[in-house]
Amino acid sequence: MVEKTNAIEHRAPSGGDPSVIGVVGLGLIGGSLARRLVDRGRTVVAWNHRPHPYEQARRDGIICEDSLAGLVAANPDVLVLCNPLKAMPAILAELKPLLDACPNVTLTDVGSVKGMVREQVEAAGLGSRYVGAHPMAGNERSGWSAADPHLYDDALWAITVDADTAYDRFLAVARFVVDAVGDRAIVLDDDTHDRAAALISHMPHAVATALINELVDDPIRNIAAALAAGSWRDMTRVALTDPDRTRAMIEEDAANVETLLRHMATRLNAVADQLHDGDADALTEFFAAGQPFRDYKAAANTRKDISDAAAGQAESAATQPLAIPHDGWQRALLESALRGEHIVAVVDDREMRVSVRSRV
Amino acid sequence: MVEKTNAIEHRAPSGGDPSVIGVVGLGLIGGSLARRLVDRGRTVVAWNHRPHPYEQARRDGIICEDSLAGLVAANPDVLVLCNPLKAMPAILAELKPLLDACPNVTLTDVGSVKGMVREQVEAAGLGSRYVGAHPMAGNERSGWSAADPHLYDDALWAITVDADTAYDRFLAVARFVVDAVGDRAIVLDDDTHDRAAALISHMPHAVATALINELVDDPIRNIAAALAAGSWRDMTRVALTDPDRTRAMIEEDAANVETLLRHMATRLNAVADQLHDGDADALTEFFAAGQPFRDYKAAANTRKDISDAAAGQAESAATQPLAIPHDGWQRALLESALRGEHIVAVVDDREMRVSVRSRV
Repeated sequence: MVEKTNAIEHRAPSGGDPSVIGVVGLGLIGGSLARRLVDRGRTVVAWNHRPHPYEQARRDGIICEDSLAGLVAANPDVLVLCNPLKAMPAILAELKPLLDACPNVTLTDVGSVKGMVREQVEAAGLGSRYVGAHPMAGNERSGWSAADPHLYDDALWAITVDADTAYDRFLAVARFVVDAVGDRAIVLDDDTHDRAAALISHMPHAVATALINELVDDPIRNIAAALAAGSWRDMTRVALTDPDRTRAMIEEDAANVETLLRHMATRLNAVADQLHDGDADALTEFFAAGQPFRDYKAAANTRKDISDAAAGQAESAATQPLAIPHDGWQRALLESALRGEHIVAVVDDREMRVSVRSRV
Repeated sequence: MVEKTNAIEHRAPSGGDPSVIGVVGLGLIGGSLARRLVDRGRTVVAWNHRPHPYEQARRDGIICEDSLAGLVAANPDVLVLCNPLKAMPAILAELKPLLDACPNVTLTDVGSVKGMVREQVEAAGLGSRYVGAHPMAGNERSGWSAADPHLYDDALWAITVDADTAYDRFLAVARFVVDAVGDRAIVLDDDTHDRAAALISHMPHAVATALINELVDDPIRNIAAALAAGSWRDMTRVALTDPDRTRAMIEEDAANVETLLRHMATRLNAVADQLHDGDADALTEFFAAGQPFRDYKAAANTRKDISDAAAGQAESAATQPLAIPHDGWQRALLESALRGEHIVAVVDDREMRVSVRSRV
């Protein structure tokens, strides 16, 4: 069931209280977010499926509620779903009547695959309240005990919208990311996000797994493992961590990963052909083709080498205004992201500031 | 031209002076080796194609010769070729008459591809003097200025032999690696070495390059690059360093890399099919297949977590003797390597001690 924006649910322009944020789930991502928001002077109301983090969380200044009803009753401007994806349908079903009674609350999440979350939110009848979000933050730990506000230091968030997204719902989430959390944002449609995530994460995880499978299947595996050095270690690291989680991540983004794995297979067979034929020109072209990414990384590393103060100045000097049109605002924001720009400030309802960064 | 062992060239059982090592080339690998050997009380005689490292090298206790003739005249037990592969034919041609006059000197090298070096050595008429070697040591720097004896700390060397290798030539190189350098060794034929190197290094370098090419060719490349995190950084790091050097490395081991790239393409297409078909069982199997390598790494990490002293004791407790038969010694040593054993001591002419390590 796809719910469209309707007059009753459309919140008043004033929105909820922007100083109050609701957080569902106090794991690594939600717990770190809640602690950071408290550090930055926001009121955070949280609910966790089990109360074990509450004692420490309350000492950290987080208001912990025993029910989702209590959480929604606090009338947060934005309610951030940081629960595991598998808990999403049950939580959305419980939230639906609560949010119907609190039209100001905008719903967002932190999931790493956006198309599937939007489908679940729409199935729950909450599509008009929802703007997707995915912070580029995390590490290999998990749970409240690993929560760290610095996880979000200088993090980039992907905010995902679709053609039906209400602009002021988007604006509430943009302000949450940029003002409340103090991070940067790009704005995408779900498909662009999920294709990009497949390219830089989900597909490479499958490639890393194929590499260790290739070793395991080789009779000289112990010799190969003994000779392995930094290149092998780096390229297989992600194949070592929790294969069930990796499998779930890949299955959630299956169509994009499938396409990219076929692209990679075609590329690897082409190099094999070039080696077979001794085609030096084609091999030279294969190694030259990635140069724009090498140049991009070199520029990024140069930027990191200069002092923090100088980097701050350079960053500040390299921002520019981005006016947001009433019609086609989604497209205008996507085109900014395609140009490699990141939103660093929400100036007013119709103007952002974007940083202009190195481009591939 | 393939030179076989002949009576004239076969050195006396006493060999050269095992306390004297010759080093050709004072770059990162040769310079680090020379400095380590001096630190360990050996006499090191070195030659470099340009004399610029000599002043510092002499201060470090390395005897620097102005010619290869001077180097060979010092009658080193082992002469280690640490020059670039492209200089190999010219250096071997110059060494041939010099080594003909010094039958005790055993020739070895540190190249990362062994089949090609043996072909060059045999073409120069020095096959009967040669035992291949490849230390698992190095970093992304180069040149004498980066030389560091600690580069060889606890390093594993692959020693490569063929059916025609004289046992005492092998023994000279084994003693050089284990006694003089103080490292560990496994003994392989060239093909096994080059296939293993293709599996854990050369092929993955091509895969990493294909990954960055895939990004560069995608219209959403700037978005993907912005969203990239640790998994992408690790899997593409080796694609960023000197593509010409990577191309040369892959071309030197072309046949093995070709085969492995086709294996990988087949694996990636199979996963794409499984995702297309929603074949959960096959995907589960794909992620389970690499478990022996995950277990091997977990065991290795546990070993590193225990204290150095305890690790030393455990290592010492886990060594065992390996008797070397007169007939089929190459096969006996290869089988030891296939079992994951590393040579840690040369007890006498016919007995090694091997450490018994975790196996994949």
